[in-house]
Amino acid sequence: MAVYTQVSAELLADFLARFGVGELVSAKGIAEGVENSNYLVETTQDRFILTLYEKRVSAGDLPYFLSLLDHLAAKGLPVPPAIKDRNGNAIHELAGRPACLIRFLPGVSLSHPTPAQALAAGKAMGAMHRAVADFDGFRENSMGIATWQPLLDRCGDSLNQIAPGLHADIAFALGDLMATWPAQLDTCAIHADLFPDNVLMLGDRVTGLIDFYFACTDLRLYDLAVMHAAWSFDATGRDYDAAVGDALIEGYTRHYPLSDEERAAFDDLAAGACIRFTLSRAWDWLNTPVDALVTRKDPLAFWRRLRVYKPALAARLESLS
Amino acid sequence: MAVYTQVSAELLADFLARFGVGELVSAKGIAEGVENSNYLVETTQDRFILTLYEKRVSAGDLPYFLSLLDHLAAKGLPVPPAIKDRNGNAIHELAGRPACLIRFLPGVSLSHPTPAQALAAGKAMGAMHRAVADFDGFRENSMGIATWQPLLDRCGDSLNQIAPGLHADIAFALGDLMATWPAQLDTCAIHADLFPDNVLMLGDRVTGLIDFYFACTDLRLYDLAVMHAAWSFDATGRDYDAAVGDALIEGYTRHYPLSDEERAAFDDLAAGACIRFTLSRAWDWLNTPVDALVTRKDPLAFWRRLRVYKPALAARLESLS
Repeated sequence: MAVYTQVSAELLADFLARFGVGELVSAKGIAEGVENSNYLVETTQDRFILTLYEKRVSAGDLPYFLSLLDHLAAKGLPVPPAIKDRNGNAIHELAGRPACLIRFLPGVSLSHPTPAQALAAGKAMGAMHRAVADFDGFRENSMGIATWQPLLDRCGDSLNQIAPGLHADIAFALGDLMATWPAQLDTCAIHADLFPDNVLMLGDRVTGLIDFYFACTDLRLYDLAVMHAAWSFDATGRDYDAAVGDALIEGYTRHYPLSDEERAAFDDLAAGACIRFTLSRAWDWLNTPVDALVTRKDPLAFWRRLRVYKPALAARLESLS
Repeated sequence: MAVYTQVSAELLADFLARFGVGELVSAKGIAEGVENSNYLVETTQDRFILTLYEKRVSAGDLPYFLSLLDHLAAKGLPVPPAIKDRNGNAIHELAGRPACLIRFLPGVSLSHPTPAQALAAGKAMGAMHRAVADFDGFRENSMGIATWQPLLDRCGDSLNQIAPGLHADIAFALGDLMATWPAQLDTCAIHADLFPDNVLMLGDRVTGLIDFYFACTDLRLYDLAVMHAAWSFDATGRDYDAAVGDALIEGYTRHYPLSDEERAAFDDLAAGACIRFTLSRAWDWLNTPVDALVTRKDPLAFWRRLRVYKPALAARLESLS
């Protein structure tokens, strides 16, 4: 959420010349996305997002991400394709970083989506999953269920600084979940992080799906579960908005009906999403200096969502009492 | 250089409705300017910069800044006027902060201006000083010479952590300067911070003068001296580019010829600029945590410039040895 790598106007003008997209008119560093540096760039022809990939995105994963963007854009999804230079290359180096020039999409990220907006976003995810049926890229989920126990171990007892008993409670919930995880469900290329931040909208219309840098091959329904957990609660995770949650699922099923087995597994997958974001936020929380100029996101905001997806379990947890 | 106050898309859409400038299409938090929060906002009609004023800008000073912008824009200078709402108000409150909607200007800030670009920028400053001849606003320079000794005292001996002997050296240089400060020269409304960051250009043309939040009433020539010190050196302050420095002065004099007295005083004023930015950067340096996600600007980068403006003095300073 900051600009980590500065790109001078002079360097940027030279960079743009590789693409034949017009002359540089304006460039503003923007605070957006995961830990990359982003510029909103205007040329005499069009507007773009220039992304320089910082440490969280591995350069080796970029071909996967970009081929997924290309695939989805070609299928008519509102996904910004990376621009290729005169030699057909989309992945570049700029200021010592891997860099891509991506088409700008209009629209705003909502803070408080309405059910009508959630319906549209759910439909967009369903359409995305339909569109990847013939996408043959593969990427392991670097934040998938296999990584949660090791991340829990790395966080260690420091978790109890966040809430009393949190370490033991996450261990318990995770053990419970791993015993019932529906690994037999369908997999496909998923976004894995489709928070409201990553959906651009104008009114009730989805104009952009962005920030695919956690995209991977994993359970299709887990993608919807992440979205459900991200969209259907207030920022503290205390208030559940069932109308928004139901609309997401309703929208999704317009493209992809859910089987009884999938409906039965949904709460487990959503609980998994809660654990995944609790752990990653807790790790960031424990490793971000208090006085750093970034907002530390409350790890408990996702933990509290367990009360909706796993009420019986949540009632037994000291950290949620 | 960060977005300190988050404004939701929903709140922003409501805010824009006060102005009659069209519907919200896009909003991106941008990393720009002094410690304010800025958004690049696009509507169905136009583009704007939304600024929310954080602690460094006093709400009481906003009427001065905005009337200066209006005055300069009305005179045809490339200065972005603040947009007035349907009731004629330019100063608003948004998300608990004073806020203004300012017209977006094209152009990029240069990192390595050429002499031709410096000539244009010098001309723009000269034109700006001509244009304020009938501007009757007054604001004390909150970073003027009267504030340097108190700021030096507040920094104290910690300055010697930055360079051995720095505290005593600044005290000595400042004493020297105060004895000869040409306070009798003309005053007017000045920008007081016209670094390359704050000049937007397209090619050799100035398309915008921005970030007037240090503007004040002070010595007219001090404005040019600040610009000269800011533009004519590499980032470390070691390499002086006389062609750029000369072009700035040459451009300025196209609108405002300098008297012999002014030419004789120029190095004193530039040395003052060096001390002012050394002190403010040193204060920020000493008070910014090392691990904060903002770039701490090297205070010595301005201190080293004394070697050009005051070579005999600089030769006597331990901190520059």
